[in-house]
Amino acid sequence: MKSLLNKIDSKLSFERASAHCDVPCGIYDPISAQIAALTVVRMVDLLLDQEKGEGANIEVRNKMARLVANKEEHAEKAKHEIRIIWGDFIKPAHVEKYPQIHGLVHSIMALGSEAKQHVSREVAVELVDKINEFAEIFWEIKGQETVKAPAPYAPNLDLVYRKI
Amino acid sequence: MKSLLNKIDSKLSFERASAHCDVPCGIYDPISAQIAALTVVRMVDLLLDQEKGEGANIEVRNKMARLVANKEEHAEKAKHEIRIIWGDFIKPAHVEKYPQIHGLVHSIMALGSEAKQHVSREVAVELVDKINEFAEIFWEIKGQETVKAPAPYAPNLDLVYRKI
Amino acid sequence: MKSLLNKIDSKLSFERASAHCDVPCGIYDPISAQIAALTVVRMVDLLLDQEKGEGANIEVRNKMARLVANKEEHAEKAKHEIRIIWGDFIKPAHVEKYPQIHGLVHSIMALGSEAKQHVSREVAVELVDKINEFAEIFWEIKGQETVKAPAPYAPNLDLVYRKI
Amino acid sequence: MKSLLNKIDSKLSFERASAHCDVPCGIYDPISAQIAALTVVRMVDLLLDQEKGEGANIEVRNKMARLVANKEEHAEKAKHEIRIIWGDFIKPAHVEKYPQIHGLVHSIMALGSEAKQHVSREVAVELVDKINEFAEIFWEIKGQETVKAPAPYAPNLDLVYRKI
Amino acid sequence: MKSLLNKIDSKLSFERASAHCDVPCGIYDPISAQIAALTVVRMVDLLLDQEKGEGANIEVRNKMARLVANKEEHAEKAKHEIRIIWGDFIKPAHVEKYPQIHGLVHSIMALGSEAKQHVSREVAVELVDKINEFAEIFWEIKGQETVKAPAPYAPNLDLVYRKI
Amino acid sequence: MKSLLNKIDSKLSFERASAHCDVPCGIYDPISAQIAALTVVRMVDLLLDQEKGEGANIEVRNKMARLVANKEEHAEKAKHEIRIIWGDFIKPAHVEKYPQIHGLVHSIMALGSEAKQHVSREVAVELVDKINEFAEIFWEIKGQETVKAPAPYAPNLDLVYRKI
Repeated sequence: MKSLLNKIDSKLSFERASAHCDVPCGIYDPISAQIAALTVVRMVDLLLDQEKGEGANIEVRNKMARLVANKEEHAEKAKHEIRIIWGDFIKPAHVEKYPQIHGLVHSIMALGSEAKQHVSREVAVELVDKINEFAEIFWEIKGQETVKAPAPYAPNLDLVYRKI
Repeated sequence: MKSLLNKIDSKLSFERASAHCDVPCGIYDPISAQIAALTVVRMVDLLLDQEKGEGANIEVRNKMARLVANKEEHAEKAKHEIRIIWGDFIKPAHVEKYPQIHGLVHSIMALGSEAKQHVSREVAVELVDKINEFAEIFWEIKGQETVKAPAPYAPNLDLVYRKI
Repeated sequence: MKSLLNKIDSKLSFERASAHCDVPCGIYDPISAQIAALTVVRMVDLLLDQEKGEGANIEVRNKMARLVANKEEHAEKAKHEIRIIWGDFIKPAHVEKYPQIHGLVHSIMALGSEAKQHVSREVAVELVDKINEFAEIFWEIKGQETVKAPAPYAPNLDLVYRKI
Repeated sequence: MKSLLNKIDSKLSFERASAHCDVPCGIYDPISAQIAALTVVRMVDLLLDQEKGEGANIEVRNKMARLVANKEEHAEKAKHEIRIIWGDFIKPAHVEKYPQIHGLVHSIMALGSEAKQHVSREVAVELVDKINEFAEIFWEIKGQETVKAPAPYAPNLDLVYRKI
Repeated sequence: MKSLLNKIDSKLSFERASAHCDVPCGIYDPISAQIAALTVVRMVDLLLDQEKGEGANIEVRNKMARLVANKEEHAEKAKHEIRIIWGDFIKPAHVEKYPQIHGLVHSIMALGSEAKQHVSREVAVELVDKINEFAEIFWEIKGQETVKAPAPYAPNLDLVYRKI
Repeated sequence: MKSLLNKIDSKLSFERASAHCDVPCGIYDPISAQIAALTVVRMVDLLLDQEKGEGANIEVRNKMARLVANKEEHAEKAKHEIRIIWGDFIKPAHVEKYPQIHGLVHSIMALGSEAKQHVSREVAVELVDKINEFAEIFWEIKGQETVKAPAPYAPNLDLVYRKI
């Protein structure tokens, strides 16, 4: 009986508590994923800058190795943060209202991997865009208004912020 | 032009290389997620055993703290492994053929979190089942036959194995 | 000669690039530390809720073990994020202008540890306050206006946000 | 008295429970180490492919940095997984029956480090071989038959599988 | 030819460079493992202190959860550090001279796990002892004298230090 | 009242227990940070050796990637260990007696990042020096004599050791 109720609960409940740490604690915020994706773009920009330098120089090599590792880490972080919100906060009822959300998250995962595999500004910017799209849906579900504004650090791409 | 080709590629390609580490290296195997999910069931069984013991005893407390931490870790691992295969190996063309896959992965994420939040054998077994279902689709895509057989360690639940 | 220039540079430079990942990439944002500290408060609230329940129950134990672990993790995260901004972004010239900053960061470290060691709402809230104080200085250095507003999730404590 | 019994127990017991996570949960499976070692071979193959490309190109550099990092990670994983089974599952009584096991594990550790230090297919393949040897002993102890069959992904080297 | 030389090298070389980070960088030092093992004893002492307190109290629970987690972490660290020195620094020629070393390391792994599984001062102290024994052999190989002296922090057990 | 006492306690107490793992367990030892900083110097030396080799060779690339990653890891470790002792062991009363300590720790953080960002022996050696300075203060607070002696592994720089 309890398990039946649990199932009904997990199928229907729209307002069940939710959290960025799956406690659930209810503290979900896409800003972490957005900053991580922006960092990926920044790493690509810095890598493309290095490309012009002389390749065999040890300082250049040290820098490139670090830039690639940081690109890797932040692309992974962006994917992980979105997976958490999607897996823990988004309930079947949300999926009904936003049927595109599964495909959107799937494309964020693929873009995150592509951003790791290449040094492509286009891919990295698309990752930011898709995560912005996700943020917009998220805040709409939470009943919060959003605003698009440039980030206060390079690259000053537009992020979807919750209106404060 | 190159980026256009890239896009066509990522939309159409069915057989693009893929990997459990997003290199991509092509070495995807759901067995890691399956063993992790089975471990969650095992932790639940051991926790329910402990429950009968006297709660204030320090040995029991040490054991329970460790069982919960391990349940946590393996539920996370199961989710992470499935996310990688889904995000890196599953392409849009696969989604067309297996339209249920997004919902299946979403439910694995939710079950993984529920398995962390509770000490429920039912939830943990359902996690194993859903991951088995995922494994079956995965091996079918890879053109490999599967067989259902009990795991060689407790809990000896059936896992979907690739037929060797 | 180069090393002399380097030293002068590190002593005088006020506007040297800076980063949340020490690349340096220039993407510093105290919001991560603020959300982490808020999460610590949330964990404390949930732990105090649990306290009223019956202690030996296995579901309660599972929950408490997870709440403590998450409190731990987020207190550490808050400390780590502040250490990075302090160590990488804050230059000697900033310290001259904000002589209290070393003591402030030191107290954040101590509060972070106290928040781990106890289940004290007072300590956790003080951690949020001190990190807000740090955020205010940070955004002032960056020439950005700030606004104090409640977080959009429980516990809805005031955070110092950059004005968008 | 209890401690004396404990010592006798740890000296004589052959069938004491054992686990891949030292709970112990009893879920030991060398397949994780085998897949990790196979991944090391794959990384070496991909690195040797890259070598032919033009070295200064930024896409090649990004790829090589990632391949080296993944080689590192999986060599470490292979070592770690074997250490766990050896340290937690293998008891003194097993060592008596398989006196070569200490030396075998020691050589796996050394090979894992060599595989990190070099880009050598020979070393990586030897790592797979030695771990296969370990897997064979492991399954024999567990009373399970094994079969040697090619892995279902490149590089399709033979792995020692438990017969299902 | 080169691979043949490599093999001869790995079989015979006694003085090959070695490292705590498998670079190899040559910086091996058992002190990290010794401090970690000492910390395990400390955690056990603090846990046994807690046992006398009232079990349901939330402050006690928070403390015990943290003590168990730290015991776990430092037991793992002790095992990991010893595995690195054993796997990377100890060569076949050393094993000939110290034939007991494989068994010693194996017992350290088993004791590390036992120290996790229980709250036993006896097991934890035995872990310190065995690691001291390992440190003695290590410094003898390095041609350094050692001295046994109490650690400068509780529990002030004797550690085998290199004579400075 | 209790919170007032807590505050007085944290302001005045000089001898409050303290720990390298913030339990607090009281086991603080700067040797870990010192070994980590020494390892950074070693990585720089090995990197500068590699620079002379031919850059496009895959073995050289593998080695350089690993050296940079290890330099990164150990510089981070050095920073982290010092942050812990500073944040958890150093109390306001110590700061009064050693008013330079905040600035010293701040410079260790900056040097740690510079050591990551460059391949500079001068920076790496300065990191060792500053951490030695910190170790000297630490042991003085603990009432322990120190001695300066060369490390028993390359680079054999002087470390500040506790006199045994």
